[in-house]
Amino acid sequence: MQAPQVVSPAIAPDRSVTFRVYSPKANEVTINGSWMDFGETLALSKTENGVWEVTIDPLASTMYHYNFFIDGVAAIDVTNPHALRDGTRYASLLMIPGKEAEVFQQNPVPHGTLSKVWYDSPSLDMKRRMYVYTPPGYESSSESYPVLYLLHGAGGDEDAWSSLGRTNLILDNLIAAGKAKPMLVVMTNGNAWQSSTLTQAPGVSPPTRETYMQWAGKFEKSLVEDVVPYIEKNYRVKSDKSSRAIAGLSMGGGHTITASINYPGTFDYIGVFSSGIFDPNADMAELEQKFNALKDSGVAKYWVACGKTDFVMESNKRLLSILDKTGLAHEYHESEGGHTWANWRDYLVLFAPMLF
Amino acid sequence: MQAPQVVSPAIAPDRSVTFRVYSPKANEVTINGSWMDFGETLALSKTENGVWEVTIDPLASTMYHYNFFIDGVAAIDVTNPHALRDGTRYASLLMIPGKEAEVFQQNPVPHGTLSKVWYDSPSLDMKRRMYVYTPPGYESSSESYPVLYLLHGAGGDEDAWSSLGRTNLILDNLIAAGKAKPMLVVMTNGNAWQSSTLTQAPGVSPPTRETYMQWAGKFEKSLVEDVVPYIEKNYRVKSDKSSRAIAGLSMGGGHTITASINYPGTFDYIGVFSSGIFDPNADMAELEQKFNALKDSGVAKYWVACGKTDFVMESNKRLLSILDKTGLAHEYHESEGGHTWANWRDYLVLFAPMLF
Repeated sequence: MQAPQVVSPAIAPDRSVTFRVYSPKANEVTINGSWMDFGETLALSKTENGVWEVTIDPLASTMYHYNFFIDGVAAIDVTNPHALRDGTRYASLLMIPGKEAEVFQQNPVPHGTLSKVWYDSPSLDMKRRMYVYTPPGYESSSESYPVLYLLHGAGGDEDAWSSLGRTNLILDNLIAAGKAKPMLVVMTNGNAWQSSTLTQAPGVSPPTRETYMQWAGKFEKSLVEDVVPYIEKNYRVKSDKSSRAIAGLSMGGGHTITASINYPGTFDYIGVFSSGIFDPNADMAELEQKFNALKDSGVAKYWVACGKTDFVMESNKRLLSILDKTGLAHEYHESEGGHTWANWRDYLVLFAPMLF
Repeated sequence: MQAPQVVSPAIAPDRSVTFRVYSPKANEVTINGSWMDFGETLALSKTENGVWEVTIDPLASTMYHYNFFIDGVAAIDVTNPHALRDGTRYASLLMIPGKEAEVFQQNPVPHGTLSKVWYDSPSLDMKRRMYVYTPPGYESSSESYPVLYLLHGAGGDEDAWSSLGRTNLILDNLIAAGKAKPMLVVMTNGNAWQSSTLTQAPGVSPPTRETYMQWAGKFEKSLVEDVVPYIEKNYRVKSDKSSRAIAGLSMGGGHTITASINYPGTFDYIGVFSSGIFDPNADMAELEQKFNALKDSGVAKYWVACGKTDFVMESNKRLLSILDKTGLAHEYHESEGGHTWANWRDYLVLFAPMLF
């Protein structure tokens, strides 16, 4: 029997969405989408011709991702050419058209270049890979640009911010709208213990808390001592503090905190997304001293963002309390939702226009 | 119940491979791998703890890809962080270690940079994207390099040659071994009717033969009139004929044939992989005239490769017959196998060392 032509996802004019999978043999097909809670699933129903389908209520215009579960096995939507990657996980893209989605879309505006670049990291004694976004016009101009160093979370690697994060498209759109200044964005691999998630063997267990602790501070050292000099030597960029920004999500927010206090005077713009002081037993007196030194070095903008229901809220509060205590001027943005890419994309859309 | 820890693929020292999927609910789990015939499947067996598995006989050392079918639904291996993409299809990577796989692996050698670059195509009245590989040292040297233009097949797009094709790693390895000269490789999107497969809506039917015919010659025009000038303006490259090569697979082989005869004197090195004169009713007299003009313009190397069992063998033979008839000096490499990425990677490994 010829398999029927399946269209999925099908977005209706009212923004309701129908998802379909062809499988005459499956016992159960479900879906989890980023508009649902983590772990929540919705059942598809089997129709006569072996196509499973479900139609969901209209979604707000923005970017989402989803997976099917075919008898419990996570799968991307085979009829959808757009798969997104975050570390070892793959999901299918869903873009609900409308005004709110525009900043995440590939629009007819000038596009920057996204490059996968290898560099030497003497600090870690490794060759490492990073993604570098250069803004539209970089190749043909003689201008020097400021740089945002943008760090991923645990489980991700150097391509998380451009895949699920849409960084290059967000920057293209913000720059075209005059909302953000043309800048480079450098997206590193924050897993100090491996040269790239993309080179790891399958079946390797995720890093333990002990792995993270053991490597504390090492990625931050390589970022400031290896990556920043590499970028400032090999790209046409400005190399003063006022032209350097750093931001990160979750683990990358922790890296941002550590890199900025360990190297005061390096970054003028600091963004901490869905993160904070993770260790409840951290030496707060020592941290306060370091934040004081950071404050004395001068910070143009310290921006903190977290979702109301984020499981890292306690860590986030510890960071806010240190910032308050030391009087380091900062802005705090508390959004709806939790520890999600929807929030991290939104935070980048809010943070990038504050820079430089 | 907690899902058991699943390792897949597990490669034994004898190079036999065990594939595993956890699904207590599935009725049937099968696998197709690139070492098997197209469409052939092998069943996995369900074990007590809900893990399906199958162990296959030792494989030769090289690169492969595979998909699971969960009750008939194509899926990538969720425990494998390495998914490869060819147009709308995703598959999981399997690398069997050994001497033969080395050229496809990420080895501790200097790595070039792979960039996603947007350019204007006045010929097609579109903004288009291409991937540009610059060799190790490009950023810090003042040298000018030759350029290989490398074209994908039907169904693929600009990232096929770096994803399933491993072009950047193959070049890194060949250059490090002194087997290929440092060069740029430019990988375009050969679908003249769309700005990028990555921007198309899901569920769009694949292009028909009529679509291809309607657009005949237009991509080739944009390649020579838009892409080549863009590269020669924006990159440090040599811009004489002897520093330009072109090659492509299947549809991209057709593009290679057309671009080289429509623009004689442009490319000195021509590689046609698993392709040929597709139209059995082509005007052979007119083609002969064009190939004669190409011959008169001077060609340093015309290299043709095809698999013994490739379904395009008749097209390939039509090309060889014209080359013979016009006396255009060429080399012909007939490999085992058919219309496969295994062959295209091998052909690139053979072709790149012949260049420049």
